[in-house]
Amino acid sequence: MQTPPLVFERLVVAGVGLIGGSFAAALKAAGVVRHVVGVGRSAASLEQAKELGLIDEIQSDWAAALKGADLLLLAMPVGQMSSVMAALAPHLEAQTLVTDAGSTKADVIEAIYTHLGEHIANVVPAHPIAGAEKSGPAAATAELYRGRKVVLTPLPENAPHAIDMVRAAWAACGAQMFQMSPQEHDRVFAAVSHLPHLLAFGLVHDLAGRANAEQLFKYAASGFRDFTRIAGSHPEMWRDICVANRQALLAELDAYLAELAWLRALLIQSDGTGLEKLFTEASEARNAWAAGQ
Amino acid sequence: MQTPPLVFERLVVAGVGLIGGSFAAALKAAGVVRHVVGVGRSAASLEQAKELGLIDEIQSDWAAALKGADLLLLAMPVGQMSSVMAALAPHLEAQTLVTDAGSTKADVIEAIYTHLGEHIANVVPAHPIAGAEKSGPAAATAELYRGRKVVLTPLPENAPHAIDMVRAAWAACGAQMFQMSPQEHDRVFAAVSHLPHLLAFGLVHDLAGRANAEQLFKYAASGFRDFTRIAGSHPEMWRDICVANRQALLAELDAYLAELAWLRALLIQSDGTGLEKLFTEASEARNAWAAGQ
Repeated sequence: MQTPPLVFERLVVAGVGLIGGSFAAALKAAGVVRHVVGVGRSAASLEQAKELGLIDEIQSDWAAALKGADLLLLAMPVGQMSSVMAALAPHLEAQTLVTDAGSTKADVIEAIYTHLGEHIANVVPAHPIAGAEKSGPAAATAELYRGRKVVLTPLPENAPHAIDMVRAAWAACGAQMFQMSPQEHDRVFAAVSHLPHLLAFGLVHDLAGRANAEQLFKYAASGFRDFTRIAGSHPEMWRDICVANRQALLAELDAYLAELAWLRALLIQSDGTGLEKLFTEASEARNAWAAGQ
Repeated sequence: MQTPPLVFERLVVAGVGLIGGSFAAALKAAGVVRHVVGVGRSAASLEQAKELGLIDEIQSDWAAALKGADLLLLAMPVGQMSSVMAALAPHLEAQTLVTDAGSTKADVIEAIYTHLGEHIANVVPAHPIAGAEKSGPAAATAELYRGRKVVLTPLPENAPHAIDMVRAAWAACGAQMFQMSPQEHDRVFAAVSHLPHLLAFGLVHDLAGRANAEQLFKYAASGFRDFTRIAGSHPEMWRDICVANRQALLAELDAYLAELAWLRALLIQSDGTGLEKLFTEASEARNAWAAGQ
């Protein structure tokens, strides 16, 4: 089957921050979208997104927003996905394709089955792997997804055409496309993304609460800066991710606590040989990974 | 007392890697050193440092190296400081000032009292806070210390003139000079430097040992990259730091384990409110710190 030319007459973006705003900007820049409608909680963000040209129209009413829509992107924190789906479901038209940008997939898919069951052939979950320590429409850019990975986690009920079109939309943003099961996705990202965020938030929180916090931060240098960059991330977004993916995240946290228990034992024993072996394995793995990036 | 014009006719650098090589290069660039003698374990590093112009002369013999020296920098991993001091002590002349670049201070100072007691008026410990995930003479640059902090931890036995001259030497590299007690130094850097390194090494080691390590690293993105940058650091250097400063580091690790136990409880309870509060406090502290940098 030949893919038809990729044109979306009407794109609806729910959540016009970094992720949603960048999706709209990228598809506009690629010339595959004609008209973008923004929907969201924050009137200020919507106005800003319109001023920046990320969206063409603001709608507060789902019926008006979704009328004639080709494609709907859900780009709010994952904790809001279920209630947003419940609100929009009665107004979703048969032809509208739906994708999302949620950082966790099992919970979003549960909400899809609950609220969008009738439309499920057209609802193709996705996760763009785009660093997001900045948020809001002002941070959005047509280049955000260029060269970045986007993981599709299609559902057994998805129509092949819907998967193709959603994949083509993300690819039109410049992304490299990958595919996983939702469960595999959530385990992988618990390890390489969610746990590091939790650890960075924890370290900064620990130090910031000390009586000598000011002195500590004064002497923190470039290693600390990079290690804690992700502790500057959006608290609500990361609250939702941690709660949504807590089972996989707890498994990762427990594996890491076992690693720290081992490191603690090496320190207590002043086992320089053991520490050096572990550090060597880590630095070789890290540098090999970075060289391949 | 007026400080005499800062000129070192003969600088001896023991350990001509990033730290020692950059000290030599910076003092040469500042025009305050005439002749640099390199001493070290690795003939290859010494040859490379000479080819790069970081040093003028290679010496394998302490007596020859130290004859007529104005200033000696000890820039090897802290685990080697004691044996190096023992070897050089019989050849150290009365006029030679000594400083070091060790990342920990209590252990280096213990070695100073043990081996350099007769010269202690002239031995002024220092710690340059310069990121060092790269190592070796090829990474050395006259600019490494520009704008960076250098912490002096003078000893009660130090001559005021020696402290002034050592401070002036580091300042001539472009560094901002600070002063602390050795104990305070070791506690502060356990928190903001040594613990983050241990945590980053541990995370990469944990993931690299998994059966699906290749898949995990494939999906690791910019957050992971920055969080783990310091896991690419020099294993031997960090082995020595962790062993030397293990008491302060264990105290920091235990505080952090208490923080993680709290985070774990919030996850188990799906306490979104508690997680968001903690994440908000962390992100505000981190962003305020970064804004002030």
